[in-house]
Amino acid sequence: MDPSNGFEETSNHDIKSFFDSSPPLKNAAEIKRKTEEFIQLNSNSGKLVRRIVLVTSGGTTVPLEQRCVRYIDNFSSGHRGSTSTEYFLKAGYAVVFLYREGTYQPFCTLLPNNPLLECLQVTDESNITARPPYEKTVKEAISNSHAATSSGTLLKLPFTTIFEYLQNLQLIASLMSGLGSRALFYLAAAVSDFYVPWESMAVHKIQSSSGPLDMRLVQVPKMLSVLRRDWAPKAFCISFKLETDKDILLKKAGAALEKYNMDMVVANELLTRKEEVIVVTKGGNIIVQQDRTRAGAEVEEPLIKLIVDQHSASINSAA
Amino acid sequence: MDPSNGFEETSNHDIKSFFDSSPPLKNAAEIKRKTEEFIQLNSNSGKLVRRIVLVTSGGTTVPLEQRCVRYIDNFSSGHRGSTSTEYFLKAGYAVVFLYREGTYQPFCTLLPNNPLLECLQVTDESNITARPPYEKTVKEAISNSHAATSSGTLLKLPFTTIFEYLQNLQLIASLMSGLGSRALFYLAAAVSDFYVPWESMAVHKIQSSSGPLDMRLVQVPKMLSVLRRDWAPKAFCISFKLETDKDILLKKAGAALEKYNMDMVVANELLTRKEEVIVVTKGGNIIVQQDRTRAGAEVEEPLIKLIVDQHSASINSAA
Repeated sequence: MDPSNGFEETSNHDIKSFFDSSPPLKNAAEIKRKTEEFIQLNSNSGKLVRRIVLVTSGGTTVPLEQRCVRYIDNFSSGHRGSTSTEYFLKAGYAVVFLYREGTYQPFCTLLPNNPLLECLQVTDESNITARPPYEKTVKEAISNSHAATSSGTLLKLPFTTIFEYLQNLQLIASLMSGLGSRALFYLAAAVSDFYVPWESMAVHKIQSSSGPLDMRLVQVPKMLSVLRRDWAPKAFCISFKLETDKDILLKKAGAALEKYNMDMVVANELLTRKEEVIVVTKGGNIIVQQDRTRAGAEVEEPLIKLIVDQHSASINSAA
Repeated sequence: MDPSNGFEETSNHDIKSFFDSSPPLKNAAEIKRKTEEFIQLNSNSGKLVRRIVLVTSGGTTVPLEQRCVRYIDNFSSGHRGSTSTEYFLKAGYAVVFLYREGTYQPFCTLLPNNPLLECLQVTDESNITARPPYEKTVKEAISNSHAATSSGTLLKLPFTTIFEYLQNLQLIASLMSGLGSRALFYLAAAVSDFYVPWESMAVHKIQSSSGPLDMRLVQVPKMLSVLRRDWAPKAFCISFKLETDKDILLKKAGAALEKYNMDMVVANELLTRKEEVIVVTKGGNIIVQQDRTRAGAEVEEPLIKLIVDQHSASINSAA
């Protein structure tokens, strides 16, 4: 018996049993149809064949009850994923934006929490106008979003739970695998490490009358290896690590690069992640910083430029 | 030794230690100033002295790490609290709306998740207009919200964690206690039953490499008794129970009415809560249903009417 083979079998078993015990994905047929049409449109639009990137964004939830009242949430505003989507679109990519319901949307990261009430007003003629200082921000948010969606280069798909996220990831990755090396996975979502298996979950609300609450959560099977190995083996794969402790961060990012055979791991430290990230690759670590000479410059601008260059190199070497 | 007295002492100790170990409330001075001004304005505006209601809305979170990446969330859209706020305003009340960041706002419950992108468009003249069929809904949402806020009858205060929620509740209740029986507490927020004491919490992100995760959560001290007894003893108090199992629901609602000496407990069953609630009072249970002869009629309309009537009776009997 080959021990590594034994490990692989266990891993496949864990993944199969995770999906088998998940509640069925709602709208699976519609998600499949939309994604197929999107891939078709962007692979065959005249002479311009776009590269396609799946950007995942925001955190997943782990339900603690089947009729969900309580859940564990992984905090993520979706700022990284939504801003990166803008730069991928500018670079000519078509983007499938798989986002947590309620998190940031592309072109909207400069708006306040509740833009409808905070940025708009109804004028005397019962028209709607943007309030100062939001005139430009609001109009650009609306028109850029609509332009990207209606031109067919941006497909937005929402998720909430860990089950929905991983079911979507598997479905979309399988559909994108036909793109070969032109497919890119940019997995910025904050995915729960632990979950409560659906079948062992309380059906009704957990009662609070009987002392402290002890919970046992089990590890979510790591899907990165199976994404790389089975779902879309030729794609360029980028995963993310977020830690509050810098020492742990680089160690874990390097381990993830090896273990899951990623092309890049983007290492984020919680407090400085909007100014700087460290891109961990097999060729070494690359520090990427926002342009400090320009007000409002975003770290995603040089980050996506670096990724596009490395993705190009990877496509050329595969050709 | 009186055993009930012993129980009270333990309870006070639990409450003190909860607040002592909570992270300090940000903006406490600003919240206090705004609330004082709001109470002042609505207690002294000419001859019209308004009643003031605190409506709490949405669910609280329980952080699992001090630099919060993971937390347990209690699901609540805030639909009940925001809709009820509209009817309290119509009934002439001034409303302090203590809401979970990101949940429904008054006058906005008929809008989709992302109204800016889903309801608006930039027209050729670079003006903003509402898309059909949202013209009326969007304009009313914006103008009614602004009217209530600018007329000084609606004060909106956000929270996220269980710590912020209970600190705000204590602060606002203490400031409202001077209103005597004219104060109303309508505690519709979904408050976590369990929490991780701040001091025993992981400072850094919980690591996922070492097998299953076992967590022990302790009970949040019940603040309803202390609100009733110490913070605002003369106010009219309404709490809520939400359960997925109807048998448990009515039993628990009745127990809460007695134990916390509430004036009313609104019993909600998860699946039917938008059509019907049962109001549990010392005088018996009252079934409140939406008006089924009108499309779009809300259960909050007869519910708030019932509450206003009973609050009036309570004020008259106290006078």
